[in-house]
Amino acid sequence: MELRGALCFFLIVFLDASMSVHGRLLPEKKPDPADAAATARWLVSQNSWAILSTISSELGGAPFGNVVSFSDGLPDEGCGIPYFYLTTLDPTARNALKDDRSSFTVSEYPIGSCGKIDPENPTCAKLTLTGKLKLVDTNPKEAEFAKQALFSKHAEMKDWPKDHNFQFFKLEIEDIFLIDWFGGPKPLTLDQYLHPGMNQLASAL
Amino acid sequence: MELRGALCFFLIVFLDASMSVHGRLLPEKKPDPADAAATARWLVSQNSWAILSTISSELGGAPFGNVVSFSDGLPDEGCGIPYFYLTTLDPTARNALKDDRSSFTVSEYPIGSCGKIDPENPTCAKLTLTGKLKLVDTNPKEAEFAKQALFSKHAEMKDWPKDHNFQFFKLEIEDIFLIDWFGGPKPLTLDQYLHPGMNQLASAL
Repeated sequence: MELRGALCFFLIVFLDASMSVHGRLLPEKKPDPADAAATARWLVSQNSWAILSTISSELGGAPFGNVVSFSDGLPDEGCGIPYFYLTTLDPTARNALKDDRSSFTVSEYPIGSCGKIDPENPTCAKLTLTGKLKLVDTNPKEAEFAKQALFSKHAEMKDWPKDHNFQFFKLEIEDIFLIDWFGGPKPLTLDQYLHPGMNQLASAL
Repeated sequence: MELRGALCFFLIVFLDASMSVHGRLLPEKKPDPADAAATARWLVSQNSWAILSTISSELGGAPFGNVVSFSDGLPDEGCGIPYFYLTTLDPTARNALKDDRSSFTVSEYPIGSCGKIDPENPTCAKLTLTGKLKLVDTNPKEAEFAKQALFSKHAEMKDWPKDHNFQFFKLEIEDIFLIDWFGGPKPLTLDQYLHPGMNQLASAL
């Protein structure tokens, strides 16, 4: 898992060198629901905020969801791994440093493409990535990647108070729960999720 | 806690009889951030979907956030307690029936009043209610209240498949985490949250 996470920014460098069109792997339009990997990556790419849940050490081990901004890469170049800019003045970072079990939940609804469909209707897609919430500041190259990814999508972050000691975190994904149509969750492995474009690339060659 | 939750729909009947203007207690416009109770109730009243987090029995006790629709009452008559329409075909209801620790997280961002402020900026309000996720079907009167509250705001729910065995749940709130300005979470008790209009009413007399 460590290797996969650390390679996120190297993957982008590789794709940038091998593909001539920015965003070719991550369509702006909603993918066909039959393409689970593309749909999941689209949900992460198109959203800018979501709910990050941790185990609350201060509330008897309750699951604690918190509103966070995130980024999975430069615009149109997302790698699928969500990065965060958090401070231990807030419970989420404090919780993660004691117990790193976490989940990250995004909805299609705020993107605006669900129309009049109810947010809980299975055709209005929803994604929960479960795994470990980890500090990335121990890896300078990945921290620099996280900084570029976050600050390019959340411009005001660069001006947030220095004395709040914000740090970069990422979710090391272990499980993927995707609902994008009737019939229950879509089977989707971590490898399929991380490389949806590579599958498209292979089938196009 | 049980008594507070069960009295939610009685409170609405009382308020309806004592107040002549619908929605007087729950303003459509964002309240002053200094009024923590009104802000928290406004966030719940104005949103129609949110993230409900439970402890995942299937994922090693990880916190599992899920996209859900909810309602805290008839339009403009919310009681502050979120009700849900869930099926055990989905992990959230299954989790809750094994371990009822839960949290419910809403953001001001989808309401549209944050403008260009980043979703993680403390002035773009965020609320996490933590407590126990409970079935209400054992109380026929409260189940009928939940049905009216949910179906009036989520019209398609009445047509959801009967064989999916959807059931009504509610969050029995134990802790309130509200960020609506700089300076950290606002102190807010459950009683203050449940009776913001009564405080306004008392100060107006």
